[in-house]
Amino acid sequence: MKLATLRTGGTTRAVRLDGDTLTDLGYPDLGALLAEDDWAGTAAAATGATYPLAGAEFAPVVPRPSKVVCVGLNYRNHIQEMGRDLPEHPTLFAKFADSLIGAGDDILRPAETAEFDWEVELAVVIGKSARRARGEQAEAAIAGFTVLNDITCRDWQFRTREWLQGKTWDSTTPVGPYLVTPDELPGGVRPALDVTLTVGGETMQSDNTGDLLFDPVALVEYVSTVVRLNPGDLIATGTPGGVGHARKPARYLSGGETVVTEIQGLGRLENRVVPDGGAA
Amino acid sequence: MKLATLRTGGTTRAVRLDGDTLTDLGYPDLGALLAEDDWAGTAAAATGATYPLAGAEFAPVVPRPSKVVCVGLNYRNHIQEMGRDLPEHPTLFAKFADSLIGAGDDILRPAETAEFDWEVELAVVIGKSARRARGEQAEAAIAGFTVLNDITCRDWQFRTREWLQGKTWDSTTPVGPYLVTPDELPGGVRPALDVTLTVGGETMQSDNTGDLLFDPVALVEYVSTVVRLNPGDLIATGTPGGVGHARKPARYLSGGETVVTEIQGLGRLENRVVPDGGAA
Repeated sequence: MKLATLRTGGTTRAVRLDGDTLTDLGYPDLGALLAEDDWAGTAAAATGATYPLAGAEFAPVVPRPSKVVCVGLNYRNHIQEMGRDLPEHPTLFAKFADSLIGAGDDILRPAETAEFDWEVELAVVIGKSARRARGEQAEAAIAGFTVLNDITCRDWQFRTREWLQGKTWDSTTPVGPYLVTPDELPGGVRPALDVTLTVGGETMQSDNTGDLLFDPVALVEYVSTVVRLNPGDLIATGTPGGVGHARKPARYLSGGETVVTEIQGLGRLENRVVPDGGAA
Repeated sequence: MKLATLRTGGTTRAVRLDGDTLTDLGYPDLGALLAEDDWAGTAAAATGATYPLAGAEFAPVVPRPSKVVCVGLNYRNHIQEMGRDLPEHPTLFAKFADSLIGAGDDILRPAETAEFDWEVELAVVIGKSARRARGEQAEAAIAGFTVLNDITCRDWQFRTREWLQGKTWDSTTPVGPYLVTPDELPGGVRPALDVTLTVGGETMQSDNTGDLLFDPVALVEYVSTVVRLNPGDLIATGTPGGVGHARKPARYLSGGETVVTEIQGLGRLENRVVPDGGAA
């Protein structure tokens, strides 16, 4: 099943995607649907109003998650190519919901950065409250997966020892276009999917989520040890090699480019980079 | 004016505190009140139902802020006593709302930590949406101040290079008991207030918020450069010297102690430390 949050008539609606048709699920957004115990049954059975997929504008797949937890370096081959040891624990940092934008929205490039970079990531969408979840309980907490581009201001990320201020700029992080439930994916809750990111048509990142050191279930176990996960919460699982900052010479987004972030079976984000701020 | 979120009859209500009386403001919590443009006028004029202060149980001052931004080392004398240079930029990290508890609630000490520590902090409560706010605009975005105890699992904080996983444990961070508007405080939006923290009656931290390197207005300017601040959002401004981790020998909360966190004019948090988890 593919589920999304559609923008329509100045508001948003939770929808199910079947072929080229979107069906209204009776909830204002996917976060509200996922808060229902039987969201999957409700979504599967819905026969509400329909909208065409052609021309549809998607909001962030969950517009106001209570938390967006991001994971640092998590692709084995990228860690090893950087000459580092595999870490014992995942590195976690946060984004705030105000950083999220939809699958086709413009990415706002702040005038305050000179190092605006990309990071394709597989994102987990939580479908059931979880605290100290283990094994099957952690698996059951996963509603599905979506695509996230963890756009980063590297200069701000490294201003201090904490990354947050480089990671949570307003309206910089596309997430979507839709959630795909694990039953539709090879590998299920531990999916093995090709991930790619292109800038202006040039491939910058290309890897497979099967290479994740901490897989989605392990991440739900780890994060939920610390803090409860709520329906609609997002976990961005980390990015593979090929970011602009690590290139020689380094390469950043200057504005005007289009970034396409795609994961096999999960669809694609296509976002233009446009300038924001600075006209003081 | 003093405003709070009261627990009553299985739900919560926004209230104004006058002497020993709490007056209902017609909103479910302080976050909902602060979302109104004229929250201050509404709060000042309200003449609803009243509750006695005696025996009142306070929820987190704002139960579900869209963000809790925390600041690292920010007291000049503490930075200098540690032999460090004054930083050029504030260090920012996040907590999630699920970590918040009320002024008299038990702090849940996770079985997973051996280094459970305290941090008294002045917290800013946002009263008006702000992005790239400067000067008077940043001052006007401050609804008032409250007390926060940034309880930290040091072993988890330092597991990786990002602090989040030591900082956002479920139900560990008391905040309250109420918001005090700047007009009631010496120094207004840059208040100079004594802060103290005791464990079992022994004073562990004692300083004055006038020593903050980045004052509340500067922090609103800085954070709102990165991401919009929404009504109800919290900024925890950092802690002075005297945390358990820096003591020789180090001293941590083992459970059973009562931690009292107090700021002049802002009231006090009094929280018992009780064990959580580990009975697997």
